[in-house]
Amino acid sequence: MASSSSGEFDLIARYFSRPVRRSPLGGGDDCALLAPAAGMQLAVSSDMLVEGRHFLSTVDPASLGHKALAVNLSDLAACGAKPLAFTLALALPAMDGDWLQRFSQGLYALADAHGCELVGGDTTRGPLNICITVFGEVPAGQALLRSGARAGDELWVSGTLGDARLALEVFRGTAQVPSEVFAAARARMEGPTPRVALGLALRGVASSAIDLSDGLAGDLGHVLKASGVGATLDADAAAQCVAARAQQPALLDAAGWRQLALAGGDDYELAFTAPPAAHEAVLAAAQASGTAATRIGRIEAEPGLRIVDGRGQAIANERFASFDHFG
Amino acid sequence: MASSSSGEFDLIARYFSRPVRRSPLGGGDDCALLAPAAGMQLAVSSDMLVEGRHFLSTVDPASLGHKALAVNLSDLAACGAKPLAFTLALALPAMDGDWLQRFSQGLYALADAHGCELVGGDTTRGPLNICITVFGEVPAGQALLRSGARAGDELWVSGTLGDARLALEVFRGTAQVPSEVFAAARARMEGPTPRVALGLALRGVASSAIDLSDGLAGDLGHVLKASGVGATLDADAAAQCVAARAQQPALLDAAGWRQLALAGGDDYELAFTAPPAAHEAVLAAAQASGTAATRIGRIEAEPGLRIVDGRGQAIANERFASFDHFG
Repeated sequence: MASSSSGEFDLIARYFSRPVRRSPLGGGDDCALLAPAAGMQLAVSSDMLVEGRHFLSTVDPASLGHKALAVNLSDLAACGAKPLAFTLALALPAMDGDWLQRFSQGLYALADAHGCELVGGDTTRGPLNICITVFGEVPAGQALLRSGARAGDELWVSGTLGDARLALEVFRGTAQVPSEVFAAARARMEGPTPRVALGLALRGVASSAIDLSDGLAGDLGHVLKASGVGATLDADAAAQCVAARAQQPALLDAAGWRQLALAGGDDYELAFTAPPAAHEAVLAAAQASGTAATRIGRIEAEPGLRIVDGRGQAIANERFASFDHFG
Repeated sequence: MASSSSGEFDLIARYFSRPVRRSPLGGGDDCALLAPAAGMQLAVSSDMLVEGRHFLSTVDPASLGHKALAVNLSDLAACGAKPLAFTLALALPAMDGDWLQRFSQGLYALADAHGCELVGGDTTRGPLNICITVFGEVPAGQALLRSGARAGDELWVSGTLGDARLALEVFRGTAQVPSEVFAAARARMEGPTPRVALGLALRGVASSAIDLSDGLAGDLGHVLKASGVGATLDADAAAQCVAARAQQPALLDAAGWRQLALAGGDDYELAFTAPPAAHEAVLAAAQASGTAATRIGRIEAEPGLRIVDGRGQAIANERFASFDHFG
C-alpha cells in the first residue's frame, strides 16, 4: 500500500515529496531503505496521535505537525539516539490542501531542525489519525534504557512539568489563568520540545532515562519496575519545574502545583537517573544542550515510589496516579 | 508515548508481550533497537488500515490481525527483503479483550510464519485504526526497486488477481456468486498472502517489482513512471489469473474479468519485470516459492501503458483506472 492510488499519490507528491539524502532509496518505492553506519544500532519508535485524545480539534495544523513528530523524537531522546528518518501514515477525513500545507510546514520545520528525513508513508481517508515511526541511531550498547537505574542514583528531570496539562484544563474550562500564563502553557501543550540534544549528551552519563508523556509519577514507575528499584521523589522540587508557577505563584496551592507536576502528562521531558559521581557531568550535559535539569529525588533499593514534600514528609500516593489515555 | 499509561500498559502486556529475540532490546522501552547484520540495508514500510476503507466492520478480528501485517509484509516482498520485525500502533474505540485476543492471534500467526517480531508500538483510544511499520533486511544494492524495468523485459504477475474485489462487490450487494466462489474470494480479501518467498527468490532475477494494492493497471503505472518506460499488457492473460473465473467462467463476460484483474485492487500480489533471458529463472523462483507466476506483457521503450486483448487488439484504457482510496 505504499503504492498509493492516484489522488493519494498526488497528495503525497505535493506536500511530502522532497529529495531524500540519508536513505539509499528515497520515498516512493514500496519500502524505504536505511543503512545504519557500522557499529550503530537503529532505535525505532511508533506513536499514534488521535484527535480529542492527543490534540484538540482547534489546534493549528502546523502545531499538530510539530507535535506529531516531537512526541516521537522524544522517544529517541530518551534512548540517547540521534534522529535519522521517519515514516508518516496519515488518515484524513477529507483532502484539505490548506490543512496539509500547514501540517507539513510544522512537521518539516521540526524535522529539519533535527536532520530527520521523511522516507516513506501512507495516506488514506478516515477519521484524523497521525502515526509516525521514527528512526535514530545509537552506538551499539550505549542506548539509555529504562532498566539501568541503581540504588543511590540521583533522579533528575529536564525542562518544565505540568504546563501542558494546565493549558488543557483551561481549554476544558476547569481552570482560569491570565492570558500570558495561558499563552506560555499552550505553547508547551501544542509545541513540546523533544530533548534530543540532552539525550545525546547524557549517553555515558545517565544510568537510565524515559520520556514523560503520561505524567512523571506514572512514567517513573516504568523505570523503577524495569530497573528493579524504588525511589523517593521530592514533589516540591518537581513542582518548582512548573513554569506557570513562576509566573503566577498564587494560582494553585502547594498540593495543586505538585499534582500538576507529577500527574499532568504531555510533558515530553526526560526523567533520568545518574550516579552521584556524575552530578557535575549531568549539569554539564544540561548546560551543553541548553536544557534545564533539576534533581528531584533519589533511587533506592526498596521497591516502590515514595513521594515526599520539600521537608521530606510523606505525601499520599493516590493523588499522583498517571492520567490514563483510556481513562 | 511508548511509555504507556497504566490501562494501556496492562493491555499491551496481556496480548502483545512476548520475549523478543531479534532486537537487542525487546519491547517495553522508549525505543526498540534493531541491528541489521553487516552489509545489510534495512527495508522499512508503514501502512495504515482504516475501517470501511481497508476492511469491513464485520471482519473476524483474527483475519484483520493477519491482513494488517500481510499488507506490510507485501511491501517487503516487493523489495525482496526478509522480514525481521514490526511495530504496531493501534487506536481502539473500546477495550475489548475478546477482540484483542482474536486480533493478536491472527497477527502473531502470520508474524511467526515469517519470523517477524513485534518490537514496539503504541495503543490509544480512538476510531479503529491499525498502523504497522515493518522492517526487513536486504543485502546492500540488491533490493528490488520500481525503477529497474527495461525495454524488452517480460512483465509478470504472481498468484491471483481480482478475487478480493469480487468478494467486496458481493459484500456491497453489487455481485452475486455461488457460495463456494464467495468463500474462496472472501479468503483472498480477508487473508491475503504476502509473497515474501517469491520476492526473496526474485533477487538477482527480476529487474523491478511492486506490490499490488490499488489494482494492477494503476500500480504498474508507478513502475513505468519510475523506470521511464512503457508496457503492453495482455488483459486476457491477466484475467486468467482471477481464481473465480476457473470456478465460474460464466459469471462475467470477458470485459468483466479483465476489469476485475486490472482494476480490482487489494490483491497483494507482486507485479515484476525480468529480462527474457531470465524467463526460466523466473519460473524456477516461482516454483521454489510455491507461487504461480504468469507472464502478462512486455516492457517497451515507448512511454505509456497499452492494454490489449489476447489477440493483441488494443482495449480502451479508461476502464482500468485504479480504484482510489480517496475515491
